[in-house]
Amino acid sequence: MKKRVGQFLFDEIAKHGVDKIFGVPGDFNLAFLDDIESHETLQWVGNTNELNASYAADGYARINGLAAMVTTFGVGELSATNGIAGSYAENVPVIAITGGPTTVVEKAKKYVHHSLGTGIFDSYRKMFAHITEAQTYLTTDNALTEVPRIIQVAIEEKRPVHVHLPIDTAMKEIEVPDQIEYPEVKASEDLSSIIEKVTDTLQNAKQPTLIVGHQINSFGLQDQVQQLAERLNLPVAQLSLGKGAFNEESPQYMGIFDGNIADEAIRDYVNGSDVVITLGAKLTDSATAGFSQEFKDDVVMILNHRQVRIGAFESTSPALPEIVEALGQIDYHYEGQFPQFVWPKAENVDLNDEPLTQENYFKLMQGFLKKGDVVLAEQGTSFFGSYSLGIEDSTTFIGQPLWGSIGYTLPSTLGTTLAAPERRNILLIGDGSLQLTVQEISTMIREKMNPVIFVINNDGYTVERKIHGEKAHYNDIQMWDYKMLPAVFGGQDIPTYDVKSTKALKETMDAIEQNPNTMHFVEVHMDVMDAPEKLNIISKAFANQNK
Amino acid sequence: MKKRVGQFLFDEIAKHGVDKIFGVPGDFNLAFLDDIESHETLQWVGNTNELNASYAADGYARINGLAAMVTTFGVGELSATNGIAGSYAENVPVIAITGGPTTVVEKAKKYVHHSLGTGIFDSYRKMFAHITEAQTYLTTDNALTEVPRIIQVAIEEKRPVHVHLPIDTAMKEIEVPDQIEYPEVKASEDLSSIIEKVTDTLQNAKQPTLIVGHQINSFGLQDQVQQLAERLNLPVAQLSLGKGAFNEESPQYMGIFDGNIADEAIRDYVNGSDVVITLGAKLTDSATAGFSQEFKDDVVMILNHRQVRIGAFESTSPALPEIVEALGQIDYHYEGQFPQFVWPKAENVDLNDEPLTQENYFKLMQGFLKKGDVVLAEQGTSFFGSYSLGIEDSTTFIGQPLWGSIGYTLPSTLGTTLAAPERRNILLIGDGSLQLTVQEISTMIREKMNPVIFVINNDGYTVERKIHGEKAHYNDIQMWDYKMLPAVFGGQDIPTYDVKSTKALKETMDAIEQNPNTMHFVEVHMDVMDAPEKLNIISKAFANQNK
Repeated sequence: MKKRVGQFLFDEIAKHGVDKIFGVPGDFNLAFLDDIESHETLQWVGNTNELNASYAADGYARINGLAAMVTTFGVGELSATNGIAGSYAENVPVIAITGGPTTVVEKAKKYVHHSLGTGIFDSYRKMFAHITEAQTYLTTDNALTEVPRIIQVAIEEKRPVHVHLPIDTAMKEIEVPDQIEYPEVKASEDLSSIIEKVTDTLQNAKQPTLIVGHQINSFGLQDQVQQLAERLNLPVAQLSLGKGAFNEESPQYMGIFDGNIADEAIRDYVNGSDVVITLGAKLTDSATAGFSQEFKDDVVMILNHRQVRIGAFESTSPALPEIVEALGQIDYHYEGQFPQFVWPKAENVDLNDEPLTQENYFKLMQGFLKKGDVVLAEQGTSFFGSYSLGIEDSTTFIGQPLWGSIGYTLPSTLGTTLAAPERRNILLIGDGSLQLTVQEISTMIREKMNPVIFVINNDGYTVERKIHGEKAHYNDIQMWDYKMLPAVFGGQDIPTYDVKSTKALKETMDAIEQNPNTMHFVEVHMDVMDAPEKLNIISKAFANQNK
Repeated sequence: MKKRVGQFLFDEIAKHGVDKIFGVPGDFNLAFLDDIESHETLQWVGNTNELNASYAADGYARINGLAAMVTTFGVGELSATNGIAGSYAENVPVIAITGGPTTVVEKAKKYVHHSLGTGIFDSYRKMFAHITEAQTYLTTDNALTEVPRIIQVAIEEKRPVHVHLPIDTAMKEIEVPDQIEYPEVKASEDLSSIIEKVTDTLQNAKQPTLIVGHQINSFGLQDQVQQLAERLNLPVAQLSLGKGAFNEESPQYMGIFDGNIADEAIRDYVNGSDVVITLGAKLTDSATAGFSQEFKDDVVMILNHRQVRIGAFESTSPALPEIVEALGQIDYHYEGQFPQFVWPKAENVDLNDEPLTQENYFKLMQGFLKKGDVVLAEQGTSFFGSYSLGIEDSTTFIGQPLWGSIGYTLPSTLGTTLAAPERRNILLIGDGSLQLTVQEISTMIREKMNPVIFVINNDGYTVERKIHGEKAHYNDIQMWDYKMLPAVFGGQDIPTYDVKSTKALKETMDAIEQNPNTMHFVEVHMDVMDAPEKLNIISKAFANQNK
């Protein structure tokens, strides 16, 4: 049947389980936005700006497995580069679609709006090549092969891709067969030699550790990895970069390993390991308190997506799912001891009117979380205070510690609520971060989403103060009346709370619990230099790393 | 004397008349922000996000002649790409400084936060190469030559430049001589043959037109161009892209030429010209109502910065100031007739309680403007309604019709007020645009700036509705209570106004006039499909261009 190129693109995206398209309209995409509006299963979600759209798409993809967004040429797509690069770094598949000027305009090198006014039209596409896994310039001739190719790359590589779609091409009809051919996914060469090497190494190991990370989440391999670890009786640690990669209720689980700030038992076990397997995990600075792990690099066996290193052997070929599947052939059973994860119970916090501390805030948060929640923790005190909380298997924890773009989690929460509106979505964020992307609360209200939002008001960039310039002017921010925000954005009926003590926080949490069918907006006051202990240490490590 | 590399960079920037540095702190720039905080003449202006910082720097540079901003690696600098590309397109000199990881970290390809987690560190720098005129990676060895070079490129080319400054390098001391050598600006080859060609062409012209544009503003050549035009008695038209390039009070001035929507007299004169000189001016789609000019391309003589075309002769060598100076040698006097600009008087508008129309809004705005104002008009109804207003010579008009990034003018107004706090800065913006960058109002309040802000509340992207999708969901935006914004952002005392009629608008303007020492925030209600007549026509031209 005949379809417009834009229509074909969105039909194929919809076939892969995407039902929301994020973005901002512009005259180079307006006409094909009609193909979204009129689509049976797709819904357009207009964001307040393109950076926010890219963050929302990232959050949506982390829950849904794939996301798509649309911007206009130049002004729109460049504003999204930060978010798309974050998706690239943290292996999140987002299809970033740019509506461009007509091919006629481009060929004639016309001085059109949103161009650089130089007749050069490919600058932005070249920029995107650095932060996406694949790129395409759609034409009526190539759409039938390029659309399946680009979607498949996003899915197979769990990374963003860039689609440039000239507005005239989008509106032109092509003949589309009933069956769309997707390129065959090439299996890697035989992995048996890799498996042999892993088995050999394990069989000689006295104290092995399996460290799992964010790529396990990206590829949705949590169950397979848990089965593998339990069958081999391997002790497992998670990184903060990828919390959720391993079921914290499994007997194999030791806890979060974050270098020398990990709990003593797990720190000593992992640092003393003679074999450390990183499976879909990267030992980044923020995940290891500034590379403070004490095991040597030569005990590390890297089994990441397209990145295998076992001793002197290296390969960039195997995909992570292939690796995990192949590991299923390993015949091994670890017979040694290892520490067990001690589930951090919601300890009894004295409920009183004293000023709330970060420590008590996160203790009470542990008690507030429940099965099935989606928790987003903003880089800063929120993330460093919450990544050690106990998270049940059906709960999803989202942070962005590798890319670490402040402001990310707020629009990302829009994305997760739209992907999982039936779950309770909880945003933990601070004032400094909130200010970057605040307007996306408006879209949450427009879309009638019901996240629970906790904003720590502690008068500025505490995470930066901890690193450098405690009292410097540049770490101050303007004091806002945060509680007014929902009303400004059209949510006059949204309950807001002003919390300054443990007692008030507990009462607020109880009130939220009793009224699940609305957004809740909680402003939580804490002292400017109060911070989770882990952040105190990591910030010193970051300061040292910068010398 | 000894200086840290960062200190040297900021000292040199300060020497060129910059007194404010925009940006957002991050751990890769914190340490050298101290060199700004402790600087004698520099002041750090922390923005709410990096896109806003880039817009603010752009606005500051348009008034001040040069601007500088600081972001962190990756997350920060990529968020600024849209604003920097806009400065590139519209010839605005902004020095974009990125604080990067240490050279040690980079060489070791460590997986640090804000990197892509791949060991590749030069991706962002390569991206910036597409949207800046020059780039540098500072080292202790090259700083003494690279800092002067990069600053000079920004000033000479009136375009943004990118400085990558590793945090360790920033903190290292170098020996700085008392006299810093700036590279000699190379004069172009002899321009006499160009002048000869221009003179010949003019002498054979029956109906010549001089069209001036944005580059005249970038290079500050307004006076020279006015003297030139008056001496040669050349009829002058301005483009909307660059309004302010020519003194509208000069007898040579005919008015804005915007293709077939220009006032009849100027339209007929320019379209009938046998010689059209564009001097620092680009005939873009938005400036010409979609290339609707009726003169042929072969009557156009292009005299732009590094872009000269006279008949078959082309050169990319001469700088605009050289060209303008050389034109001073021309011996010519036009003896023909040409239409005179008819100053749009603030017509008598019937003051009543009827709903306010766009037409009456801009008529009353003409009466409100006064000598010395800085007026920023957002792309959309605000720009298309105001670029035909009469602007006195001491008034500055700022729009962004080539780059056309919605949301630009709000942070840009922060920049202009900081560059010219003694002048009245007026922002004309619509609701759809305001939502993208709204949080920068907070910085205006923190910095105690006093702009007058008019926000048109007409329920969404009217400019987009005019192009395509009048009633489409994607052109809707969430309705906000805009008047609450100053109070949310800490400006509880700022007067706010809710205007729905001509009478209320006039009363508001009078109230503003009487109270100049505060910010004013005016929400102006107008019908969703009401638009300035010029926008009605241009939007149709854009829709056609996209077919």
